[in-house]
Amino acid sequence: MHRLQDYRETFLTYLKENATHKEPIQLYEPINYILELGGKRMRPILTLMGCELFGTDYKKALPAAMAVEVFHNFSLVHDDIMDDAPLRRGKTTVHEKWDVNTGILSGDAMLINAYQYLAQYDAKMLKELLVLFNTTALQVCEGQQYDVDFEVRDDVTLEEYLQMIAFKTSVLVAAALQMGAIVAGASAKDQEAIYAFGKNLGIAFQLQDDYLDAFGNPESFGKQVGGDIIENKKTYLYIIAMQNAKGEDKKSLQQLFSLQPEDSQTKIETVKAIFEKSGAVAAILAAVEEYTQLAFEQLKHINVSNGSKDALLAFGESLMTRRV
Amino acid sequence: MHRLQDYRETFLTYLKENATHKEPIQLYEPINYILELGGKRMRPILTLMGCELFGTDYKKALPAAMAVEVFHNFSLVHDDIMDDAPLRRGKTTVHEKWDVNTGILSGDAMLINAYQYLAQYDAKMLKELLVLFNTTALQVCEGQQYDVDFEVRDDVTLEEYLQMIAFKTSVLVAAALQMGAIVAGASAKDQEAIYAFGKNLGIAFQLQDDYLDAFGNPESFGKQVGGDIIENKKTYLYIIAMQNAKGEDKKSLQQLFSLQPEDSQTKIETVKAIFEKSGAVAAILAAVEEYTQLAFEQLKHINVSNGSKDALLAFGESLMTRRV
Repeated sequence: MHRLQDYRETFLTYLKENATHKEPIQLYEPINYILELGGKRMRPILTLMGCELFGTDYKKALPAAMAVEVFHNFSLVHDDIMDDAPLRRGKTTVHEKWDVNTGILSGDAMLINAYQYLAQYDAKMLKELLVLFNTTALQVCEGQQYDVDFEVRDDVTLEEYLQMIAFKTSVLVAAALQMGAIVAGASAKDQEAIYAFGKNLGIAFQLQDDYLDAFGNPESFGKQVGGDIIENKKTYLYIIAMQNAKGEDKKSLQQLFSLQPEDSQTKIETVKAIFEKSGAVAAILAAVEEYTQLAFEQLKHINVSNGSKDALLAFGESLMTRRV
Repeated sequence: MHRLQDYRETFLTYLKENATHKEPIQLYEPINYILELGGKRMRPILTLMGCELFGTDYKKALPAAMAVEVFHNFSLVHDDIMDDAPLRRGKTTVHEKWDVNTGILSGDAMLINAYQYLAQYDAKMLKELLVLFNTTALQVCEGQQYDVDFEVRDDVTLEEYLQMIAFKTSVLVAAALQMGAIVAGASAKDQEAIYAFGKNLGIAFQLQDDYLDAFGNPESFGKQVGGDIIENKKTYLYIIAMQNAKGEDKKSLQQLFSLQPEDSQTKIETVKAIFEKSGAVAAILAAVEEYTQLAFEQLKHINVSNGSKDALLAFGESLMTRRV
C-alpha cells in the first residue's frame, strides 16, 4: 500500500493530463477551473485504494477515479447555482465567475464526461461500473432534492434526515470504493462489504460535520462555526433536540430557528446550550461512534490479508479523529 | 415495415409504462410532465426504424429509443432555462411551472436516467451504444455553447454555422438512427451510412426551418413567422446575405440586426427583401436540396433490400416536403 500522498499525486497528474483544451473554450474552461480548484480528492483516492486492496495495480482504476471526481465536481457546480453560493474552496464559484448559463451547460458536459471515463473499460467491467454509477448518481440527485424539500418542512424525522445525508454524500463515497473493487475484479461479497464500509463511514463523517459545525474550534474548522444554526438548518442536532427538549427550551429552539437576527452570537450560544441540555450532543457523538464502528466492522468481512486493509483503516481513522 | 403511427403508439405506451412515480415527487413530477408534453417523437421513432431496417424486431430498440427521447427532453429543459423561455410545445416550461432549481435538478436526473435505459442492454452492445451516445451528448452541449457564443460575434462563417446546427440538432437525429442499427447488430459500414443519412437529413431539416421561419405560411408554420429576424438571429440566410449584399443593402441589414423595434413588421419585410435580392434565399433552398440529396444518397449504400428502406425514404420525404 502507498501513502495517501502517492495516490493523490498520481491522480492529480492524470487529471492534468486529461484536461480538455479545445473549442468551445467557454464550455471547457470552467470545467478545468473547477477540477483544478483543489479539494482533498478523497473520493478518487478511495477508488484507487479500493482497487489496490484487492491486489490490482491502482493505476488501472484511474479512469474510474476520474469519473467519480468529475461527477462530484459536476454536482458542486450545479449545487452552487441552486444555493446561490459565491465561494467554493475559498474561490469564486463557476456561475459567479462566468454566469448561471455557463454553470448549467458546463456542469452538463461534466456529467457526460464522467461517463466517457467509464467507457474506457472493457465491456463487461463497463456494465458493472455503469449500473452502480447510474444508481449512485440518481441517489445524489434525490438527496439534493430531499435537502431542498426539508428546508420548508417542520416534520422531518431522524430516519429521513439520515437517508438524505446518505444519498447526498455517503453513497458516492461508498460507490467510489466499490468501483475500485470492480476494476480489481473483487467478488460480489467483497464489493458489498467495501460499499457498506464507505457508506457507514460517510454517514459518520457527515454527522461529525454536523457536530463540528456547532462545536468545532473556530480556528481550525474550515467553515464558519455556527453556520448551520445561523441558517436554521435542521440537522441531526436540531431534530434530536426538538424531540427531547421540554417546555421553554423547546419553544425557544423553535422560535430561534424562525429568526435570522443580525447579531447571531447570542442565538448560537442559546441554541448550543439547548443542544447540550437536551442530550442532542451526546446522541450525535454516540451516532458518530456507532457508524464508525459499523464501517470498521465491514472491513473485517473483506477477504484479503489484514495487512492490506491498513491503509483504509488508517484513512478511516484519520477522517474520524479530527476534533477540530 | 410499420406505419409511423404504429411506432409512435408503441413508443408512447412504453414511455407511459416507464414513468417514475416515486419520492421525491418534486424531482420526478417535472420529468413526467415534460416527457408527456407531446412532441412528434421523431428521434425515438427513428431509433425504432433504424433497428427494424436491419431485420430486428423494433421493440428490442425501445430502451435505446427512450434514452434518446429522455436525453432530448433533458436538453430542452436546460435550454429553456438558459433561454428564459416561458413556453414549450405551447405549455409552460418546467422552470416556469416549478422554478429554475427544479429545472436544473430534474434535468440532471433525466440525463442520468437516459444512461439507465442504455444499461439495460447486454455488455457488448451497451459499450457500443455508450460510446456513440457520449460523443453525441457532448456535441449537443458544444452546439448549444456555439449558439450562445455566436450571439455576440459578428464574424461567424457559414462553415461555423453549419457545424453549430449539426451539433445542436443533427447529430442526435443521426445517433438515434445508428443506435437502432447497433441494437440490430448492423455492420460498421451500414451504421456509418445510416448515421450520415440522419446527419444530412437533420442539417437539411434545420436549414429548411431557417427558411420557413422567414418565408413560411403564418397560418400553418408552428412558430411566429419572422421570429429569427425579430431576435436578430444570425441564421444561414443572414450570413449569406451579409456576404453577398452590396452597398446600402448590406448597411441596412447590419443596422436592422442591431435593433429591436416595437413594430417589427417593417423590419421583417425589409430584411426579407434583402434576403431575396442578395441570393440568400436561392442559396438556402439549394442547400436544403443538396443536403436532402446527400442524405438519400447514403440510403443507397445500406446493404438491405430496397423495399426495407421505403419507410425511411417516406419519412425523409415527408419531412422535407413540408412547405408550410
